[in-house]
Amino acid sequence: MTTSSTPLLDKIHTPADLRRLPESDLAEVARQLREETISAVSVTGGHLGAGLGVVELTVALHYVFNTPDDRLIWDVGHQAYPHKIITGRRDRIRTLRRGGGLSGFTRRSESEYDPFGAAHSSTSISAGLGMAVANTLSGRPGNVIAVIGDGAMSAGMAYEAMNNAGAMHSRLIIILNDNDMSIAPPAGALSSYLARLVSGDAYRSVREAAKQLGRLLPRFVYDRARKTEEFARNFWAGGTLFEELGIYYVGPIDGHNLDQMLPVLKNVRDFKETGPILVHVVTQKGKGYAPAEATHDKYHAVNMFDVVTGKQVKPKPNAPVYTSVFAESLVKEAAKDDKIVAITAAMPSGTGLDIFQKTFPERTFDVGIAEQHAVTFAAGLATEGFKPFCTIYSTFLQRGYDQVVHDVAIQNLPVRFAIDRAGLVGADGATHAGSFDISFLGILPNMVVMAAADESELVHMVATAAAYDEGPIALRYPRGEGVGIDMPIEGVPLEIGRGRIMREGKQVAILSFGARLAEVMKAADELAALGVSTTVADARFAKPLDEELIMRLASSHEALITIEEGSVGGFGSFVAQKLTDSGALDGLGARPLKFRSMVLPDLFLDHDKPEKLYAQAGLDAKAIVAKVLSVLGREALDVKIA
Amino acid sequence: MTTSSTPLLDKIHTPADLRRLPESDLAEVARQLREETISAVSVTGGHLGAGLGVVELTVALHYVFNTPDDRLIWDVGHQAYPHKIITGRRDRIRTLRRGGGLSGFTRRSESEYDPFGAAHSSTSISAGLGMAVANTLSGRPGNVIAVIGDGAMSAGMAYEAMNNAGAMHSRLIIILNDNDMSIAPPAGALSSYLARLVSGDAYRSVREAAKQLGRLLPRFVYDRARKTEEFARNFWAGGTLFEELGIYYVGPIDGHNLDQMLPVLKNVRDFKETGPILVHVVTQKGKGYAPAEATHDKYHAVNMFDVVTGKQVKPKPNAPVYTSVFAESLVKEAAKDDKIVAITAAMPSGTGLDIFQKTFPERTFDVGIAEQHAVTFAAGLATEGFKPFCTIYSTFLQRGYDQVVHDVAIQNLPVRFAIDRAGLVGADGATHAGSFDISFLGILPNMVVMAAADESELVHMVATAAAYDEGPIALRYPRGEGVGIDMPIEGVPLEIGRGRIMREGKQVAILSFGARLAEVMKAADELAALGVSTTVADARFAKPLDEELIMRLASSHEALITIEEGSVGGFGSFVAQKLTDSGALDGLGARPLKFRSMVLPDLFLDHDKPEKLYAQAGLDAKAIVAKVLSVLGREALDVKIA
Repeated sequence: MTTSSTPLLDKIHTPADLRRLPESDLAEVARQLREETISAVSVTGGHLGAGLGVVELTVALHYVFNTPDDRLIWDVGHQAYPHKIITGRRDRIRTLRRGGGLSGFTRRSESEYDPFGAAHSSTSISAGLGMAVANTLSGRPGNVIAVIGDGAMSAGMAYEAMNNAGAMHSRLIIILNDNDMSIAPPAGALSSYLARLVSGDAYRSVREAAKQLGRLLPRFVYDRARKTEEFARNFWAGGTLFEELGIYYVGPIDGHNLDQMLPVLKNVRDFKETGPILVHVVTQKGKGYAPAEATHDKYHAVNMFDVVTGKQVKPKPNAPVYTSVFAESLVKEAAKDDKIVAITAAMPSGTGLDIFQKTFPERTFDVGIAEQHAVTFAAGLATEGFKPFCTIYSTFLQRGYDQVVHDVAIQNLPVRFAIDRAGLVGADGATHAGSFDISFLGILPNMVVMAAADESELVHMVATAAAYDEGPIALRYPRGEGVGIDMPIEGVPLEIGRGRIMREGKQVAILSFGARLAEVMKAADELAALGVSTTVADARFAKPLDEELIMRLASSHEALITIEEGSVGGFGSFVAQKLTDSGALDGLGARPLKFRSMVLPDLFLDHDKPEKLYAQAGLDAKAIVAKVLSVLGREALDVKIA
Repeated sequence: MTTSSTPLLDKIHTPADLRRLPESDLAEVARQLREETISAVSVTGGHLGAGLGVVELTVALHYVFNTPDDRLIWDVGHQAYPHKIITGRRDRIRTLRRGGGLSGFTRRSESEYDPFGAAHSSTSISAGLGMAVANTLSGRPGNVIAVIGDGAMSAGMAYEAMNNAGAMHSRLIIILNDNDMSIAPPAGALSSYLARLVSGDAYRSVREAAKQLGRLLPRFVYDRARKTEEFARNFWAGGTLFEELGIYYVGPIDGHNLDQMLPVLKNVRDFKETGPILVHVVTQKGKGYAPAEATHDKYHAVNMFDVVTGKQVKPKPNAPVYTSVFAESLVKEAAKDDKIVAITAAMPSGTGLDIFQKTFPERTFDVGIAEQHAVTFAAGLATEGFKPFCTIYSTFLQRGYDQVVHDVAIQNLPVRFAIDRAGLVGADGATHAGSFDISFLGILPNMVVMAAADESELVHMVATAAAYDEGPIALRYPRGEGVGIDMPIEGVPLEIGRGRIMREGKQVAILSFGARLAEVMKAADELAALGVSTTVADARFAKPLDEELIMRLASSHEALITIEEGSVGGFGSFVAQKLTDSGALDGLGARPLKFRSMVLPDLFLDHDKPEKLYAQAGLDAKAIVAKVLSVLGREALDVKIA
């Protein structure tokens, strides 16, 4: 019989079990929780560093507050693995981010301990304020706690929420989890402000005099007489930025020291006055796991790894990843054109701009988690003749949508949008899927929208965007590896609004927009074996459409099918509008045309492997073959290929 | 021969002319500029209060800075009428907001003195930082000045930009135009923070000791020694919130006193250090025009008026305006259901929530110019069983798009989006058009999207949204008056996803989504006179579609035409997807169906009267008749109705 290495943790099935333990056990609970977190992520891969940074905070919050009646919101949610372990999900923790398994983020449908789902940053204060106001309106007792990182605090949304919270009288507790590191080191003035708070004498003396905190705090919290308050503020090193916004500031305190955190959190919990309170907690990303602490990114997101060595199991790539191809292509273009500059919203490595930055540090701008600002900052650069590449994941570009419309498209400014993670993304799930950009960009006047069919096309599209200076242009490309195609020596600008024929056939034409092309080609092979002659074309542009190509395909085939890695309302809808406007679908003449548009289904797909998701979405080779046979009235043959 | 009442202003054709005058003339220039602004707006209507508040500031900025080489950006742009008058557009100032005339906002295509167009708020710091960084990269001398109101400062975008600017070393001058009043009195903690700055002893003594400023300022600006800086900071009353963000704060100063402003602006201009500077200028909205000063909204936006009395010429409405119908309906629903709450992002009167607020002050939330927060705050309320109506203009909802996707739709939370100003809006032009929401909302899983065909329908849709609790639901309605239809005594919830037949015919079916219905009915009458039998249906829902109705119309008519006040990618595209998927457009069978989707054209339409815009867009009765005849191959008849 083996002895469990986590005997205390084994007894904790819900936070109520935790709350029955004496305080003196909590440090050991935290140690075991950390061990279990590392063990689980070593098997599943996922976000590790953020979770390790909040192990003690997780224990302290669930110990002091009465979850789930008290609402605990984790901003972004990727640091919530320890939280999941002690809120009834330990038995499934090794299914994290796998198909059918636990989400890598918080999720309302997964647990009553997740009162608000997240994955994008900086939403927690807004959501928490909504819950706190609901408590006030209902006369319901109970606390709302929003835990938000310092990086997430740089987003405008967090400021909007603080500005609103500071003017209201509902009880909201904001825990600022300051690890000076969101994914990359954070950009911006707020970050240096927080650093000044933490580096001040007050914090240092607090660390040394931790034991005194429990005794000191009540005085400053309860006694609002001016003198005491001033004393307290000086002692606590300031926080005036938050106080000016009407938020009572407490901190900074050591987020790995339970002796510091417990009395502070209890005092905050029992504080009778209304209004928002911010507790500034200093943590270390990757804390307690030496390999994570030693690396630059603190094991932000990892593959499976060996717990002892920390060595990650990285599957050898079969082809270059799109992100790197983009970055290297942009470096080449920028070497030829000193007006090219690049902008990221706190994702230098995710977007590949860390590569660009090595060569062109002064032409790289990390503006923080600030997509709204990123877009309009790029627009400002464009007015002065620069060629900004605004490099933002599809899902995050939703944060800057009005700026794309109002500041870029209406003014017809040549901002280049490099849109990574377009289409379904896999383990990150629905919150990170890039499903909507073809539509929300393609409906805008003046906008040019491209999608890369493969990594070679991406090279040419970067060159196209660099060369095109007449207005805004977007290029989208998927997460992950390319298809292994031969790479061009250099990018050659494409003709705007021109597609290309990949394979000539007679019966059916499939017009692909983006990286489904490989599946379409595969389907065409299978169809050929079934006696169906298929033309395959790569549209390259969703806007402007290659109307000549579309009308040619329409007039010379029995059926025309579009396919894209996006929702309805995008490429297929634009083609349908063109076809119906032109009368091509009026069913007149000798040979009426059948048209179909293959798009993502009308539901948010859960996390799973991308190939499984595309099968589920009906956008893989098998589904394409089935669609063609169905359109041709040959469903019976479907059996053969099943 | 009459004598001009504005002899000095008459000599100013460009700011260069202004800069040739002695400083002693500037107060008189300002007086004449104010007179001319009032005179112009009395003829055109438009935004008056904001412009009157910045007359002296406009004169001072153009006098001190070398526009257009120095870039002067007016946030929002509705305060720029005085700016337009002295930058070569005085001869057209009485065409403001009229078809073919000057825009009511700044606009790049209108003048080189408008380096960045605006109309939505809070973009100026981002755009200005882009220009300032461009100057740094190019080694180009010159200043960039962004003038932003205190209301606009509450938007997250402004904070993102300050946070980024504060960490960079480019020269950017931010003028905080603090009139404690954007459209409504501003909401939020920032506002009370600014009020504390202005009400402090320092500002009062500054006002009294204005003459000393010119002498005092250089010392504090040039001498960065700690002691002097501390002295200066105390003298200038603080501004630590901005300083914590890395922005050098100067102020507050009196924005109507040229003797205060000129030396400060000159010092700021000549300041040799890099990095952003914020000058806090206090102004009074509506300043210098007694009727404006006396009213609650300071003549924010006015109709034509009599200059002497200030009395506005308000055309008598023919029918209730949609905004009021919405508000009154919501009051009725809220009286029956205490879980209904309402949220506005700084537009209480524009959205009608000022009416709601009178009855339910504690259930009304003005969160400031903060659409991102507004949406997620509503989501938080929804998690606790409340029924939030998030009331935002279509164009401004673009600011909260990611929050609609990530916090509302993915979590399937029952947030109600009441979307005013849907479709083309008239005098405010392209920046305010609500063209894209049908598409950007309709493509989201879980979302229900309704549009009101008339004011009676709006009553029922408010009831529908109040009753529907299964997920998010949006109702859109246009700016302006309804059609004068009989109003129901109370709203009755509609069946989700069901349209209605308005008129039965045989040949052509027109399926309308939204307020084009009246034009469609008119077109059907005209078509009847031409011998075309037309069915008219009101879809009511763009999502979920009434598939039964659509298939019935498709199978029993020669042609089916959809119409909507929105772009491609919306309702018509969803119907096309349904029809093509179902094979209804395959051109088989006895009687093939012709399908057309009438949508807004692929261009940003300039400001003009809505009826002219819809004629230009091809979405009025005449265009509908022409479309039907064309689809039926009866173009020749078009002549008859021309």
